[in-house]
Amino acid sequence: MQRQRKHAERDESATDHEQQEENEKQQETAHAADLPLQTAAVLAWGVMTRNNSLAATSTERPDRFARRSVVLVGLMGAGKTAVGRRLAQALGLPFVDTDHEVEIAAGYSVSEIFERFGEPAFRDVERRVIRRLLDGSRIVLATGGGAFMDRDTRAVIRALGLSVWIRAPLPLLLKRVAGRTHRPLLMSGDPATILQGLMDLRHPFYAEAEIVIDSRDESVDSMAQRLTNAVLAHEPPLRVPVELASGGYDVVIGSGLLARAGGLLAPVLPQRRAIIVTDRIVAPLHLAPLVAGLESAGFTTGTVEIEAGEASKSIQGWSELVDHLLSRGVERRTAIIALGGGVVGDLAGFAAAATLRGLPFVQVPTTLLAQVDSSVGGKTGINTPHGKNLVGAFHQPRVVLADTDVLGTLPPRELRAGYAEIVKAGLIGDAGFYEWCEAHGAAVVGQDRVAQAEAIQRACAFKAAVVGDDEREEKPNDGRALLNLGHTFAHALEAELGYGGELLHGEAVAIGLGLAFRLSALLGYCPAEDGDRVRTHLEAVGLPTEIGMLNRRLSAERLIGHMRRDKKMRDGALHFVLVHGIGQAFTSGDVPPDAVMEVLREAGCRES
Amino acid sequence: MQRQRKHAERDESATDHEQQEENEKQQETAHAADLPLQTAAVLAWGVMTRNNSLAATSTERPDRFARRSVVLVGLMGAGKTAVGRRLAQALGLPFVDTDHEVEIAAGYSVSEIFERFGEPAFRDVERRVIRRLLDGSRIVLATGGGAFMDRDTRAVIRALGLSVWIRAPLPLLLKRVAGRTHRPLLMSGDPATILQGLMDLRHPFYAEAEIVIDSRDESVDSMAQRLTNAVLAHEPPLRVPVELASGGYDVVIGSGLLARAGGLLAPVLPQRRAIIVTDRIVAPLHLAPLVAGLESAGFTTGTVEIEAGEASKSIQGWSELVDHLLSRGVERRTAIIALGGGVVGDLAGFAAAATLRGLPFVQVPTTLLAQVDSSVGGKTGINTPHGKNLVGAFHQPRVVLADTDVLGTLPPRELRAGYAEIVKAGLIGDAGFYEWCEAHGAAVVGQDRVAQAEAIQRACAFKAAVVGDDEREEKPNDGRALLNLGHTFAHALEAELGYGGELLHGEAVAIGLGLAFRLSALLGYCPAEDGDRVRTHLEAVGLPTEIGMLNRRLSAERLIGHMRRDKKMRDGALHFVLVHGIGQAFTSGDVPPDAVMEVLREAGCRES
Repeated sequence: MQRQRKHAERDESATDHEQQEENEKQQETAHAADLPLQTAAVLAWGVMTRNNSLAATSTERPDRFARRSVVLVGLMGAGKTAVGRRLAQALGLPFVDTDHEVEIAAGYSVSEIFERFGEPAFRDVERRVIRRLLDGSRIVLATGGGAFMDRDTRAVIRALGLSVWIRAPLPLLLKRVAGRTHRPLLMSGDPATILQGLMDLRHPFYAEAEIVIDSRDESVDSMAQRLTNAVLAHEPPLRVPVELASGGYDVVIGSGLLARAGGLLAPVLPQRRAIIVTDRIVAPLHLAPLVAGLESAGFTTGTVEIEAGEASKSIQGWSELVDHLLSRGVERRTAIIALGGGVVGDLAGFAAAATLRGLPFVQVPTTLLAQVDSSVGGKTGINTPHGKNLVGAFHQPRVVLADTDVLGTLPPRELRAGYAEIVKAGLIGDAGFYEWCEAHGAAVVGQDRVAQAEAIQRACAFKAAVVGDDEREEKPNDGRALLNLGHTFAHALEAELGYGGELLHGEAVAIGLGLAFRLSALLGYCPAEDGDRVRTHLEAVGLPTEIGMLNRRLSAERLIGHMRRDKKMRDGALHFVLVHGIGQAFTSGDVPPDAVMEVLREAGCRES
Repeated sequence: MQRQRKHAERDESATDHEQQEENEKQQETAHAADLPLQTAAVLAWGVMTRNNSLAATSTERPDRFARRSVVLVGLMGAGKTAVGRRLAQALGLPFVDTDHEVEIAAGYSVSEIFERFGEPAFRDVERRVIRRLLDGSRIVLATGGGAFMDRDTRAVIRALGLSVWIRAPLPLLLKRVAGRTHRPLLMSGDPATILQGLMDLRHPFYAEAEIVIDSRDESVDSMAQRLTNAVLAHEPPLRVPVELASGGYDVVIGSGLLARAGGLLAPVLPQRRAIIVTDRIVAPLHLAPLVAGLESAGFTTGTVEIEAGEASKSIQGWSELVDHLLSRGVERRTAIIALGGGVVGDLAGFAAAATLRGLPFVQVPTTLLAQVDSSVGGKTGINTPHGKNLVGAFHQPRVVLADTDVLGTLPPRELRAGYAEIVKAGLIGDAGFYEWCEAHGAAVVGQDRVAQAEAIQRACAFKAAVVGDDEREEKPNDGRALLNLGHTFAHALEAELGYGGELLHGEAVAIGLGLAFRLSALLGYCPAEDGDRVRTHLEAVGLPTEIGMLNRRLSAERLIGHMRRDKKMRDGALHFVLVHGIGQAFTSGDVPPDAVMEVLREAGCRES
């Protein structure tokens, strides 16, 4: 039997979460300075050097598929030790108890460390011991109930381990701890009241665990079996890091992310408070699960619903949204979460950028187009009568949650339109990914979640690399401008046809891609066969590739006029992204208007 | 006699300035790659290692008062050589001719270098020779007419030398070059036409020289005497570097800066095109000299005039301004220049931040308040019905021009109000500067330009240090928040009295400083004598320091209500900047409302 724990589940009095986080923050900076020398000596054994800069840790990106140590968190009585031992057995791993290791390392019992050196010193040793253990070979680690309350310890576990919260309801906990005299905390008052207080305080933090498993009134073996199954079946979401000079963030891609939003967002936000901006079409579909996911991690949330559609992206709409946010009493640490497509993301992002000179921002894109394109890269903005997206800011999100489940509610036509931007990524600079698209495009538009996740991951990784190299679109050639492959044509078509839905952006891009290959071939840059191949694939998944498919006879002259007014143009010259072939795009600032005219005429436009 | 120059004034055909700058930019990146190996060998002698990263150079900040080498620039025939030799004699320095040194270094005549290796190679050698010469002991250096056209060479000269443009009118140049057969360029057509073309092309770049002296039809000795006097009398403007993680900029302080604006702005802007935003009070006073100063350096300018006063800082006013800018066809490289006080700077700054997701921005503050406070640090923003400056951006300027001459048109009351923010800098963290204020405050408000320049320099240096340490006001304690000394009281007074001019911001700050010292004394942080001393000084320069001086019986309860709604407050607690004494401010988040009430009552407020 494990040696008796002399200490209880200790705790700060149950202040509110924010105060808790504030305390943790202060603790974080205080550690090094405040540790009594004595403690430092006491802790020397087993702790190794204190090479644990959290800054370094949090940017480490372990392979999420590697088999990591399993870290059990939860309240006293949840069964971490009993079930954990059996999990270890099942996985063929050693079982280790944090408190036990701390006592060995420090040469004092846990209670003694608390009494002599105080809780901050204990948490510091505990964190170092956990880091040392997780840095070593694979184990099953049971942590004390307070360990996961420490922000830095959570960061260590997030970086190095697979966290599992064993969640137990109050009656079960009460039954399990009843009459155990070694829990002095519970002796100080009514156990139910005390346990309920601990649950209120701690569950929001436990919710940051990667796996949550409910403890039932069942045998230890049965519970251990379910736990083992959950660990073995666990597929962590994909993560694409966007690395920028101004700091980085992850695009998290996978199924069921809305329900886990609180746990995914808390580590990257300064406060568990957020205002969700969404539109009237998305709200009934996805708002409730997101709110529930946030609240499970102790978030306070508010919601602002805007009208769906491009018309909301106006100065008027923006000004109203900012006013809403201020009316809700946002302060500098309150996050703004955009739940919706590109319109919601662009509008909410610019509101977040400007309100109080910049609020933390999160993108939860609900269209495929937004998941692979507009939610990544930090561009936010609104339209003016002079043109689209002419006013805005570069305001990077703290994290992007691309939940593939939301794609299930997307009309097929919108799903296809989003797919056009995925293909674009391959065509610009990754011929291998384009080949993947040819093989798996049908699955992506056919609602295959695994194919969708991979497509999103690869498209986002491509965009992240481009954006990381040219965050504010300052390179005169190539750089971020490459992302506009097909877009000079697309924007002209959209300007001509309006944004009322006759032609979706992604459809316009698909046609634009086809035309960009035709123009490149006409100018001798690219074999005509490459364009044929691209058009064949796009048409196979149901996307238009020719202006003729629009059943409208458009004027080439008018389209070229729109191109000249595009904000990318300088001095009225025609700037295009052209290709030397699939995966080989380049920017060109001197495309002869005659060539553009010829391509448009061949595509079925009338001349004037 | 100097050895005959075998080369003419060579030139690219006179394209427009932007093309010129574009070319230079490309040249910049091309240097290393494009130099034929042969050339590299040729240039080895005398050029030393190519340790001339311009990035490093441009951030070097030489002591502008050190006696630097004098670098003469100007067209052929302006007299650089003849006059330069006499200047060297008068200053007791060696005279050196760039072309001559290049020929020695390269072992070829200038014409041969051009023919064999092309102009880019020549400019590269020339720049390296100039750097080597300016890195050595003091000389007078005459440059070839094209040297100062090279962006990188200008940067080298700006960093290491004192540039003087000898400007000559066309008839004089024609007379001087007439019949000289060693100027082959002039033999290729009508000399007047050719020279006029060169003037049009080059004068905008020569205008970046620190001293401009006009060549007249006079003796060489007379001209040399005037030149020597100008060099000896030259007082470069003061410069305060603001160093930020996101890059830095200078606050340039001195007399006559508007007239030199073009030369001062060109090195830090991507394009010689700017839109000036100003108001209807400032425009008649200062717009014309600024426009002239910009045009002399080849800037194309436009102007947007707004109504003077706080009311313009609304979403409506901002939206109209953005619309104006877009109507003018701004593109991403077009600069926005704010010419005016804090309202113009805040509004134009936020318009610059948001238009096309961020345009280059320049502050030309015309009030003392704006020169020492709002123009430095990057805060821009507008007011909403919820409060002041609640919407905006951190958008740092590329440079701030604080021209002390503009203070001559400022009403004395506004000058005094601005002075309050200068005193504040000393009170926060620089007791020595506060003592300087006691000694020189009367001169500052008495329109002494030298005292004003020093006061602005010291106040800006203080603010730059604070801002550099906490650019986006993210530190929970101290940091940028310290700049709010006196401001919790000041904002409450302004909220109560309105922004119609009854109480200027600086006056409110002066009262706020007095009250902050009273509050600090009451709470036992600070000796009462320090507060007496501060109030004595502020009153001596004509600033109010007590609420009683307003001849209004204000309600302490209402003022505290305003404080609770201040955006700096969290959870309704009263946050203040307090002092341990003069120059020792600190932030405090838990000031008892009773103490604030007592201070306000003692200051003459009624309780409710």
